[in-house]
Amino acid sequence: MKLIRYGEAGKEKTGIIHNDKRYDTSAFGEDYDERFFENDGLNRLAEFVRTSNLMQVGDDVRLGCPLGRPSKIVCIGLNYIDHARETNATPPPEPVIFMKSTTAIVGPNDNIVIPKDSVKTDWEVELAVVIGKKASYVDEAEAMDYVAGYVLHNDVSEREFQLERSGTWDKGKGCDTFAPIGPFMATTDEISDPHNLRLWLKLNGKVMQDGNTSNFIFNIPFLIAYTSKFMTLLPGDIISTGTPAGVGLGMKPNLYLKPGDVVELGVDGLGSSTQKLVAYAKN
Amino acid sequence: MKLIRYGEAGKEKTGIIHNDKRYDTSAFGEDYDERFFENDGLNRLAEFVRTSNLMQVGDDVRLGCPLGRPSKIVCIGLNYIDHARETNATPPPEPVIFMKSTTAIVGPNDNIVIPKDSVKTDWEVELAVVIGKKASYVDEAEAMDYVAGYVLHNDVSEREFQLERSGTWDKGKGCDTFAPIGPFMATTDEISDPHNLRLWLKLNGKVMQDGNTSNFIFNIPFLIAYTSKFMTLLPGDIISTGTPAGVGLGMKPNLYLKPGDVVELGVDGLGSSTQKLVAYAKN
Repeated sequence: MKLIRYGEAGKEKTGIIHNDKRYDTSAFGEDYDERFFENDGLNRLAEFVRTSNLMQVGDDVRLGCPLGRPSKIVCIGLNYIDHARETNATPPPEPVIFMKSTTAIVGPNDNIVIPKDSVKTDWEVELAVVIGKKASYVDEAEAMDYVAGYVLHNDVSEREFQLERSGTWDKGKGCDTFAPIGPFMATTDEISDPHNLRLWLKLNGKVMQDGNTSNFIFNIPFLIAYTSKFMTLLPGDIISTGTPAGVGLGMKPNLYLKPGDVVELGVDGLGSSTQKLVAYAKN
Repeated sequence: MKLIRYGEAGKEKTGIIHNDKRYDTSAFGEDYDERFFENDGLNRLAEFVRTSNLMQVGDDVRLGCPLGRPSKIVCIGLNYIDHARETNATPPPEPVIFMKSTTAIVGPNDNIVIPKDSVKTDWEVELAVVIGKKASYVDEAEAMDYVAGYVLHNDVSEREFQLERSGTWDKGKGCDTFAPIGPFMATTDEISDPHNLRLWLKLNGKVMQDGNTSNFIFNIPFLIAYTSKFMTLLPGDIISTGTPAGVGLGMKPNLYLKPGDVVELGVDGLGSSTQKLVAYAKN
């Protein structure tokens, strides 16, 4: 299945995509959140879809993040050798973990707001894994059983906040709108091999990133097993698996986002998303 | 008011402490969570308490964290000059921010589980601030208006995971049971000056930390204003303000927690908590 959430920001309804058409599933009565995944929601939703007449939804309606707010977003840093090199970072002997504030989540085609006083807002196309059940000290051999599905994620990053402001990376990762997620969550049966997916990102139509998850330093079962040693992952939580080469920080000279820029990104099997950059304006 | 949550872990009921006695407020019908704070819950609860006959609760009942699960816990590193010195860290020119997984939250007197393969589990008594309303780009002069109250927090830390495992600090801060919070949340009217509170911690009866929030490098309004530039704070979110000198990492030789140890900690006006250390055991 391909799960979507659509409609006004903060009041999204649930739906699915079937044969490239969008359908409403709000009569199912549950958001796609921790409780949904915890209580076998995917199987129950599939049964609901099989046995219901679903109303089609227009292609022009806004999409939100396909998941209700997770308890956390865990991100993996420097998980592609080419990206580690371009940022002059030593490839890590074990995964780099940081966290992204969930208040950063927006829909796949919402605007990205450049934070006040930001001069180094950057892009990062990523494959993100959605956890299906509570995971603590998971064995690597069983780790894929803990995956509910996959989503496309732009791990937007402010490099000055992340690297030059005497803190951990979290400072440059959690600004509002810094986590466009979607267009949909694909369940695991939709993705035959998550370790062989092309992922790409264009800035104003020009290809900046063009990688493949086959170049992961640490693969998905390793990342789940590893992360679950340091913190319990809850159903609906997100692990974002890192970005390949081609970010603005890696350009010579560095290249950062400015108002009016358009970023488009995609991962095989997970669709694409487009964000326009806008300047911060006090509400 | 002093807010508590009590009863079985994961099924806590709400209550208050009044004249050192505990009373049930579950008839109020709301958990002390984001929605509660967002919708003027504190004033409505005060009115409920004034006009209701509350049932007293036994002093022996388990206390949970006094807050429903927040969207995030933001922690401030190295916010006391003496603690920065003892850990051989340079006092930061601006606050160090990191995040703690909310799955780490437990009640004030629950056990602390030493993670599997951990050899450097450490303690940190802290004053934590509870946010009362959505905060983004808050002015320092208005920042105290965004505080709902204060709680005692033991920011338990695994130093090897935090500092020696090629990640950000988040890796050593979010293990299960690493955030004992409570016994109660004191509303702002209960704490006349949050910048002059003694805080202390004993290990097996011996005083290890004995500091005062008057020694903050960055005070509370600065921390709220500062953090809100990097991420939006939601009602019920927690900012933990850092720990004074006297942690195990600062001892010569280093001293870390082992099964059977007992940690007791307190902050003026926020009560005290006691945790016993136990070894990790697979459920």
